[in-house]
Amino acid sequence: MQMSVVKIGSVELGGGSFVIIAGPCAVESPEQFLEISTFLKEIGIKVLRGGIYKLRTDPTSFQGLREKALEFLPELKKKMNLPLVSEITDPRQIERLDSSVDCYQVGTRNMYNYELLKELGNTRKPIILKRGFSALIKEWLLATEYILAGGNDQIILCERGIRTFETFTRNTLDLAAVAYIKSRTGFPVIVDPSHAAGSSDLVLPLAKAAKSVGADGVLIEVHPEPQLALSDADQALDFNGMRALVRELTTAT
Amino acid sequence: MQMSVVKIGSVELGGGSFVIIAGPCAVESPEQFLEISTFLKEIGIKVLRGGIYKLRTDPTSFQGLREKALEFLPELKKKMNLPLVSEITDPRQIERLDSSVDCYQVGTRNMYNYELLKELGNTRKPIILKRGFSALIKEWLLATEYILAGGNDQIILCERGIRTFETFTRNTLDLAAVAYIKSRTGFPVIVDPSHAAGSSDLVLPLAKAAKSVGADGVLIEVHPEPQLALSDADQALDFNGMRALVRELTTAT
Amino acid sequence: MQMSVVKIGSVELGGGSFVIIAGPCAVESPEQFLEISTFLKEIGIKVLRGGIYKLRTDPTSFQGLREKALEFLPELKKKMNLPLVSEITDPRQIERLDSSVDCYQVGTRNMYNYELLKELGNTRKPIILKRGFSALIKEWLLATEYILAGGNDQIILCERGIRTFETFTRNTLDLAAVAYIKSRTGFPVIVDPSHAAGSSDLVLPLAKAAKSVGADGVLIEVHPEPQLALSDADQALDFNGMRALVRELTTAT
Amino acid sequence: MQMSVVKIGSVELGGGSFVIIAGPCAVESPEQFLEISTFLKEIGIKVLRGGIYKLRTDPTSFQGLREKALEFLPELKKKMNLPLVSEITDPRQIERLDSSVDCYQVGTRNMYNYELLKELGNTRKPIILKRGFSALIKEWLLATEYILAGGNDQIILCERGIRTFETFTRNTLDLAAVAYIKSRTGFPVIVDPSHAAGSSDLVLPLAKAAKSVGADGVLIEVHPEPQLALSDADQALDFNGMRALVRELTTAT
Repeated sequence: MQMSVVKIGSVELGGGSFVIIAGPCAVESPEQFLEISTFLKEIGIKVLRGGIYKLRTDPTSFQGLREKALEFLPELKKKMNLPLVSEITDPRQIERLDSSVDCYQVGTRNMYNYELLKELGNTRKPIILKRGFSALIKEWLLATEYILAGGNDQIILCERGIRTFETFTRNTLDLAAVAYIKSRTGFPVIVDPSHAAGSSDLVLPLAKAAKSVGADGVLIEVHPEPQLALSDADQALDFNGMRALVRELTTAT
Repeated sequence: MQMSVVKIGSVELGGGSFVIIAGPCAVESPEQFLEISTFLKEIGIKVLRGGIYKLRTDPTSFQGLREKALEFLPELKKKMNLPLVSEITDPRQIERLDSSVDCYQVGTRNMYNYELLKELGNTRKPIILKRGFSALIKEWLLATEYILAGGNDQIILCERGIRTFETFTRNTLDLAAVAYIKSRTGFPVIVDPSHAAGSSDLVLPLAKAAKSVGADGVLIEVHPEPQLALSDADQALDFNGMRALVRELTTAT
Repeated sequence: MQMSVVKIGSVELGGGSFVIIAGPCAVESPEQFLEISTFLKEIGIKVLRGGIYKLRTDPTSFQGLREKALEFLPELKKKMNLPLVSEITDPRQIERLDSSVDCYQVGTRNMYNYELLKELGNTRKPIILKRGFSALIKEWLLATEYILAGGNDQIILCERGIRTFETFTRNTLDLAAVAYIKSRTGFPVIVDPSHAAGSSDLVLPLAKAAKSVGADGVLIEVHPEPQLALSDADQALDFNGMRALVRELTTAT
Repeated sequence: MQMSVVKIGSVELGGGSFVIIAGPCAVESPEQFLEISTFLKEIGIKVLRGGIYKLRTDPTSFQGLREKALEFLPELKKKMNLPLVSEITDPRQIERLDSSVDCYQVGTRNMYNYELLKELGNTRKPIILKRGFSALIKEWLLATEYILAGGNDQIILCERGIRTFETFTRNTLDLAAVAYIKSRTGFPVIVDPSHAAGSSDLVLPLAKAAKSVGADGVLIEVHPEPQLALSDADQALDFNGMRALVRELTTAT
């Protein structure tokens, strides 16, 4: 088994360092994204995240800025000079997202969208493949083969919690799955503690646990005023919370 | 609350009669599909099913005949003069499937594929929306709104089993969900006992239970020689089994 | 495989007829139990149920009349001349319940209480063994062996719903498990639709489905004024609902 | 909210230090238990565990030495001078276990055995209350009230994995539940990574994650020759594995 190292921009995942990818759940405006990414750059974050196309259970919820975000993101990104991770929800978005996004994220609802995975296999950008919230580890690993089939082996797996009977947390973060995959495959694995927790005060302890269990990084939602966020308000960290997380994760073990 | 009646071809679902939709898991060849549909027509089946694009967990499994099936299906269908239900897995298939398929089925892996649902909302064909195997009833009902938003209200819901800890059956058929939806919404609901059972001898008792609980129909997999089927071999009924099922479901209460 | 027939009093389960066992969730007073059982006898019910020791998640909830019920139950039962099913929650209750109870029910929380099962194996009364709400079918069948080991083969299995992610229903009734067990073992199987549904209007359709799938009977909660019941108020049938259920289940197939 | 500190022997849990409780799944013989506990004492372990009464799904599996172990344990314990944690499975064992056991463990199958919890509330020994493998956090916390009702507040909670659809690991370790309980209640919480993992190579990463997420300790299964263990052979650490775990957990953050 060979450990693979995947690069997002010039940042390596799977090579031994622990990478914190952070940003808002959704890009809400040029101003909001600039404010957040400027802050994140200052505290040392090297990869940004930000949703452009959002999949929401309720069709009346905010669906992301969509095409509107693509008008200002390329310029903003040039200014920030940081790579951007963003979710893709339809094969027809590949071309549109090309100049704005450095790493395509396949969200939990699309892990079984094999038509999309096949198309992503034909690109040469890194892919963050989130685990379906009810996917067996076995199915998750099989899904990578739809991407690999096209010749793209730049795959990072992301554990984000599975659906169980428990309701106090939004999903049950399966850190044993991270240990399992790290010991039995060569894929880099990151963890999204924000979605699993569904509550911002659980993000830091879960991120620390993710690092200890062997993950190569975490994906964190940040918002300057979480209570005003257009999506996932309950689980986003504010700037103070984000600063504390960076401090704890970079000094600890 | 108004009960809606949805037509597939000229067959009504939701109007009080119990409809048996049957056919192979996958269309494997013109000969196979003709043999099965001829048999089904003889025993009184009025709506056919047959997979053209298959989503398989394992990328090396048979993925359906895909475009090849579209070369012979329009003619075969004219010969049989029966409407056909088939799964759609990508918005770009809508045009291609138009002349072969009378009712689009959204499979369990695509219930959360809202980009696909939106596009289907723009068609005027009936849609069978299968429940995601880990979808809450609430999410399933919200998914219909993505289709309704486009102006298409020809929606049939299909319960096909949910993922639980149990392993003796492939999925746990949630017949209470059928009773729940029938009593609280106006949608026709059908049941797919074949996928849930994962074993052909459980199909008949579950189909009878589906009828008793108030479903408007069932979706049954049939194959002349199940052990030779290219997919779902364990759960398909053979012709004798199918005859017995039709007999029991049409004479019983 | 030999089908076994188990008798509760003189009523046979597993011999081909469909048995409705009914009564209150909990025996609340001599008057309440007399009123309900008189009504049930009038409409043809031949086996009563009624909780004496209740296991409640919340320790401040009503825990059953416990020893107090044992003061009046033997006389009441003589008057009614009907066998009584009641739950046992501790091996030390066997002696105490002996003259009041004709069939011990092991509740869902005690399916794994092997110390209790071993002791029940030493009695010669019939045992209704409810499935643990998270028990695999395999574990449920293995649990019977703890009873069989003592020489007691008078075992009736009872499916009552399993814990899943779904929240609109209290538990997910697994009717495929009933079909599975009926086809592969000789045990009589009954279904408790009341606890699974958690809502009285779903009880009738689920009871009909239970009959169609091959169950040997159902266990129904009845209360003259369900909204005043000391436990499980949401799911008990009132007398009209119970009359309707008996009518539908005895005339239908 | 007040953080409570619970003592097993003279070892404090909940007071800020991280406690490793270790020993064999089952006490198999005086020699085996002496060998393991001597080793554990040498490497600095201060609390032993060892099963006397085992609850096994399969009645033909090894059920523990039971009363036989009570003949040699009091003397062995005096020799080792270390407190012992052991599972109790029936209220009638309290008296028998009194001189051998310093802390009663309530296993996952008995979390809902409220009759047992009530009796343990009447003792004054510390209780490790394992989470039922399908218990909601809410139910777990309510179960403590059955113990508290009798006046015993020496309660330690133990997360040991919950039952989900995943099969590559035996249970899904819910470390978010640990963070949740630590932030919202005063109970000490420990983690049993051995049972959840079901595979010895996952024990160390999960134990480290447990520490990072805020747990007060771990419960580890050790066996000199795991492949010969009479129960849970797959997940026990051997002596080398145990040494490595102690080293990593005591030097790391």
